[in-house]
Amino acid sequence: MRFTTGWLADSATGTLRRAALERRDLRPDDIAVRVEYCGVCHTDLHALQAHKSDASGVLVPGHEFTGVVTEVGSAVSDFAPGDRVAVGNIVDSCGTCRACRTGQENFCHEFPTLTYGGADRQDGSTTLGGYSREYVVSNRFGYHLPAGLDTAAAAPLLCAGVTVWEPLQALGVGPGSTVAVAGLGGLGHLAVKMATALGATTSVISRTLDKADEARVLGAQGFVVSTDARQMEAVRDHFDVVIDTIPAPHDLAPYLRAVAMDGTLSHLGHLGPLTVETMDLLIGRKKLSSAGSGGRPSTAAMLRFCAEHGITADIELLPSSQVNRALERLERNDVRYRFVLDMSDLD
Amino acid sequence: MRFTTGWLADSATGTLRRAALERRDLRPDDIAVRVEYCGVCHTDLHALQAHKSDASGVLVPGHEFTGVVTEVGSAVSDFAPGDRVAVGNIVDSCGTCRACRTGQENFCHEFPTLTYGGADRQDGSTTLGGYSREYVVSNRFGYHLPAGLDTAAAAPLLCAGVTVWEPLQALGVGPGSTVAVAGLGGLGHLAVKMATALGATTSVISRTLDKADEARVLGAQGFVVSTDARQMEAVRDHFDVVIDTIPAPHDLAPYLRAVAMDGTLSHLGHLGPLTVETMDLLIGRKKLSSAGSGGRPSTAAMLRFCAEHGITADIELLPSSQVNRALERLERNDVRYRFVLDMSDLD
Repeated sequence: MRFTTGWLADSATGTLRRAALERRDLRPDDIAVRVEYCGVCHTDLHALQAHKSDASGVLVPGHEFTGVVTEVGSAVSDFAPGDRVAVGNIVDSCGTCRACRTGQENFCHEFPTLTYGGADRQDGSTTLGGYSREYVVSNRFGYHLPAGLDTAAAAPLLCAGVTVWEPLQALGVGPGSTVAVAGLGGLGHLAVKMATALGATTSVISRTLDKADEARVLGAQGFVVSTDARQMEAVRDHFDVVIDTIPAPHDLAPYLRAVAMDGTLSHLGHLGPLTVETMDLLIGRKKLSSAGSGGRPSTAAMLRFCAEHGITADIELLPSSQVNRALERLERNDVRYRFVLDMSDLD
Repeated sequence: MRFTTGWLADSATGTLRRAALERRDLRPDDIAVRVEYCGVCHTDLHALQAHKSDASGVLVPGHEFTGVVTEVGSAVSDFAPGDRVAVGNIVDSCGTCRACRTGQENFCHEFPTLTYGGADRQDGSTTLGGYSREYVVSNRFGYHLPAGLDTAAAAPLLCAGVTVWEPLQALGVGPGSTVAVAGLGGLGHLAVKMATALGATTSVISRTLDKADEARVLGAQGFVVSTDARQMEAVRDHFDVVIDTIPAPHDLAPYLRAVAMDGTLSHLGHLGPLTVETMDLLIGRKKLSSAGSGGRPSTAAMLRFCAEHGITADIELLPSSQVNRALERLERNDVRYRFVLDMSDLD
């Protein structure tokens, strides 16, 4: 058994407190990662809320982190101590089902092992996330962090980044595509950067004009205020792809209306039931899809693409001791665009 | 004004009664059609039910019919008296919006004029449907009925046929595709025939084994009993396209689960809200779509395809005087697979 320090959920107060954590001894295919930076994802908020009402387990959030390999298992050949490494929200999968065999471990038929709150496939222990100074992970789910990517600003690519990358790829976004991104937060700002770098003409749909200048800086050529009926009418049936990153339940109809004929509304970042009117899909032969996370090949490809195009997240970097403050501000959407925790204060 | 005879809804009894009907004098672009056969569509049932609770208008159902041109307007050059002709569920559209300009009159931004229960774009009168001996329609919405297609059995192609043709085309179904058709009724049996003729490997998903033999005769190579969990598990993530023709609200999850990665569940034939769990879409990057009706080019292409491949509906032909009986049996799904009314008894 190895020991490290991290941020553990206290179910009584609903906050995180610094605590000693156990990590497993390295299995032959494992690598040990000194976590340097970990992004703060909306999922972490949801997990903490769920933990408060059902505190039966142990919770350490964090599933988009970067760091340095400090030790490798006996069978590991593609990582060496000192390598920069990144880990996302999946740390294992069955490896044998059709989804795994085609590199879509995120769709593993036995459900992938999540980076935190998952059950380790070998010993059944609950996985503890990246809000900690060390993480031990199978080398299959560690990704080489390409040169040129800032270690801190790259951390959110591992969840937010791949979550928007997957639908952009699956829906064939490229030169000539028109893409709208609804909601300009952690997911949305990366969607704008990636869609633009892929060659699409990109617009942002937002509730107010507040973020218009920022959207332009991120690469958006258009900006649509969703509360302005005239502006929404002007983009009716317009976008090949609408990436909806609004992290709360909301009416999908206005966004579906902005989708062009044979186009797709891809809804990300919020779980639960989705309801649409048949006619809103039918008129224009539109499609509804969703996405979240990505497989190993896709995650690696996304990192290469981001390195080539100089894409990282726009982040606010905080010492990890401010994690509770970060979560509280995230809940109010008071961040542009992603909090990243600096774990060096855990030493 | 011209006069004809047809079947008019009696709001007191909720049934249809024979009545004299008015038809407009021919406008320059009109053709007069002697209606020979008219299919009985689920929409007709819905319209009659709605009419019973709100009997403010006049209702003559019927929006998939075939017949012979008896007279043409002064500006009509592509039809002549004696031509076989077919009419579907749309009889007019604005003609100028982007949808109309691209041949998707079914998505007209001003909403297309429906064959019955619509408002005529010139005089505002309520359109009266094909359960009648004559119909007057703009030649733009009359289709030449290709040689070789049986006049009676072709009638359902104009609504049921084009409704399944559109998603098969939009989703690129062809050789190598795997297609499942859920529900083997008026829409479903045509979906099986068309998908098979397009080169797809086609299966039927049905509640019981009852229709297995018929499905095979229609062209299906596979048959899945939806109430058998093991059979449904065996086709998990299997079909590129699932065409869901079940004409009542139902849980979409089992059908979505049968869709292959990056595939689509296309839901037809029933209006209202559609609800899916985000995770059911997300896992496998699946899409939800809907379809209904088609534009002019698509309708004409579907008729050509059906003539080439010898596809018509499997019908039960009844004298139009039995229309109430047909509707009552349709409500119980007691038809294989489409009722068609023979209008000659209206003379």
